[in-house]
Amino acid sequence: MKQTLKKQIEGLAKKAKSASRALAVLSTDEKNKILTAMAEALLSNRELILKANKKDLAGSAGKNKAFIDRLALNEERIKQMAQGLLDVVKLKDPVGEILRDWNVPSGLRIQKARSPIGVVAIIYESRPNVTSDCIGLCFKSGNCVILRGGSESLNSNIAIYRALKEAIKKHFVVEGAINLIETDDRKAVDILLKLNNYIDVVIPRGGEALINKVVKSSRIPVIKHYKGICHVYVDEWADLNIAEKICFNAKVQRPGVCNAMESMLVHRDVAVRFLPGMLKKFKEAGVEIRGCRITKKIAKWAKLATEKDYRTEYLDLILSVKVVENLDEAINHINDYGSHHSDSIITDNEKEASEFLKRVDSACVYVNASTRFTDGNQFGMGAEIGISTDKLHARGPMALEELTTYKYMIFGSGQVRQ
Amino acid sequence: MKQTLKKQIEGLAKKAKSASRALAVLSTDEKNKILTAMAEALLSNRELILKANKKDLAGSAGKNKAFIDRLALNEERIKQMAQGLLDVVKLKDPVGEILRDWNVPSGLRIQKARSPIGVVAIIYESRPNVTSDCIGLCFKSGNCVILRGGSESLNSNIAIYRALKEAIKKHFVVEGAINLIETDDRKAVDILLKLNNYIDVVIPRGGEALINKVVKSSRIPVIKHYKGICHVYVDEWADLNIAEKICFNAKVQRPGVCNAMESMLVHRDVAVRFLPGMLKKFKEAGVEIRGCRITKKIAKWAKLATEKDYRTEYLDLILSVKVVENLDEAINHINDYGSHHSDSIITDNEKEASEFLKRVDSACVYVNASTRFTDGNQFGMGAEIGISTDKLHARGPMALEELTTYKYMIFGSGQVRQ
Repeated sequence: MKQTLKKQIEGLAKKAKSASRALAVLSTDEKNKILTAMAEALLSNRELILKANKKDLAGSAGKNKAFIDRLALNEERIKQMAQGLLDVVKLKDPVGEILRDWNVPSGLRIQKARSPIGVVAIIYESRPNVTSDCIGLCFKSGNCVILRGGSESLNSNIAIYRALKEAIKKHFVVEGAINLIETDDRKAVDILLKLNNYIDVVIPRGGEALINKVVKSSRIPVIKHYKGICHVYVDEWADLNIAEKICFNAKVQRPGVCNAMESMLVHRDVAVRFLPGMLKKFKEAGVEIRGCRITKKIAKWAKLATEKDYRTEYLDLILSVKVVENLDEAINHINDYGSHHSDSIITDNEKEASEFLKRVDSACVYVNASTRFTDGNQFGMGAEIGISTDKLHARGPMALEELTTYKYMIFGSGQVRQ
Repeated sequence: MKQTLKKQIEGLAKKAKSASRALAVLSTDEKNKILTAMAEALLSNRELILKANKKDLAGSAGKNKAFIDRLALNEERIKQMAQGLLDVVKLKDPVGEILRDWNVPSGLRIQKARSPIGVVAIIYESRPNVTSDCIGLCFKSGNCVILRGGSESLNSNIAIYRALKEAIKKHFVVEGAINLIETDDRKAVDILLKLNNYIDVVIPRGGEALINKVVKSSRIPVIKHYKGICHVYVDEWADLNIAEKICFNAKVQRPGVCNAMESMLVHRDVAVRFLPGMLKKFKEAGVEIRGCRITKKIAKWAKLATEKDYRTEYLDLILSVKVVENLDEAINHINDYGSHHSDSIITDNEKEASEFLKRVDSACVYVNASTRFTDGNQFGMGAEIGISTDKLHARGPMALEELTTYKYMIFGSGQVRQ
């Protein structure tokens, strides 16, 4: 049986590699036509998809509300998924874009051109809408995709995938342009991660355990979509009204996402003026505060933070708070305890802002704005496959351009090397 | 003892991470001043370095000529290494360059800026000049480097490294900006490859076995500098004079390097006109030919190529030859048998050229030029750390820009997410 699974997944990956060659040279018009057909297929198959989703929901009865909310589909959500595919149609095709064009002394003309990466494997949580989002973005950027979704959403994923595959078939004869691992056998991921001959990149999205597992066993390059331990630092030169507004937004507006604030740092010179009102506001919104000793002095009802608290992504109405000596301590704390995702300074002092921007080693560094803006749509990318916390290849919001590599095309007239 | 080595290397990597924060914000002037001091230190320490190199040479008596040639230093080579550092001084500092600057509807201004990667580990062959080349490029791009050179060059590497470290010390107080693993214990690499908390990227340069080992055991992102199985395809529309000149150059001018041609493909309609003269020229230059059946018919003295020949990087005066049916077969052969490094088509037909450029999945794709031009200097980058055969982050010649990542700097005036 294990041998069969291995053969099956190897066969799928090999076919994907071969299909990627054809997909890489598909014209923008052809890709858009197929994406439009995919959107239509989602709508016309909505009953089948909803039926499959009901099965998944029935199997996940014990899960918490947030989990069920991510898993559940309805007519409206299927419409949104279809609209998502139509939105991708409107995005500029990155493939073939000339990034640089220059001549060198040997007489050669060199063009640096965007090209698809090839085969992209995505491992994700039990969110069926991600299935069609990822297929849309990978297809438009000329990449073959291999999807492995959370096992609780397997039936929904299969229904969505088959509808989209049918839509492709009518216009594109090469098999294997989009792929879903249609089993919940956990061995499948181990097998997949060894296939570096066929798969060019793995994008894991999800919890720490999953990502560590992928990093440990993958022979394929990985772009991690890791946790967000995001900070807001209220500087001694902060406009405290703006600080209160931003900190509240960053924590409370949507606490369950990776760009929400998990830790608030406050300069000691403004702590007494800023913290009492701020913490009261948080308390009223149901936010549990875990603070340092000074925080606790100001708000006796707060819990004392442990070392571990400052390294925790709560994804919930909990906030760690620390009063710091100065900008230097704030920057060092963020670099040491954070996850290099999104961090913000609230200050009216340009020099402090510039120091923070330079020295904080995160994908997105903000001045006087909420960390919640780290998002492909908010950045004007039109969509996103996720937020990379890696430094190589793609950092921060990852969309169509980040799903491409480049190649050099060199034009000569008989040049040889001296 | 093993525990000691582990602690030692962990300590070194931790210090490098910490130093990388300071190095990342060093000004261009300061970096250039230190690079100049490094160049001077190489010259003033040349006797010590040559003495250490003699020790290495004595220990490598059994090795072949090419190996000894790469290992050996002399006054002239040390001068070249020093000049290499001074050349890096002249190169533009990539750090801080604004790659994009735009406003989004929320009122935020977003800047995408180049920043250093952080800590770069480089594992390389027994070539002492690479020690100072890598230190120069990593330092200029604001990265801390951890070097692990081939064990046969350990004494030379230590002498070079210590000279450069002394030069840094006088100007930059933070310890750990440049690092060398000063032991030939092979366990050191295994330990290094697990330190993903401190090291941001590993660049292995060298043989297939080394690279496979690194890919298999690394938890750190890897940028592979793999072999070059480079092709020249002589199309039916080729100018055969140009074809002969380029194929000869690509194979014979410097056969021991990764951008030399290892396999020549010839369209069947020109085989009879092209091959007899071409193969004669190769024979006269001492090139052993391993060809397909048709090649052997044309040149009876040629050996018959095996399947393995077409997958072999000879790095020597040996060439595999194949006559193909058409452009399609040539492209598929290159994609299936090549190493995605550098491949060239010789043709006067623009449509065929364009098809080849689009469909060949290699870092550098040429029309009517020798594959030997794949090189940072030839591309106008001023230097190179190597040629990446990976698709993520850096592809093809890798120099200063490819040693950087980017971060988003976002400027607001109190914006919160709706």
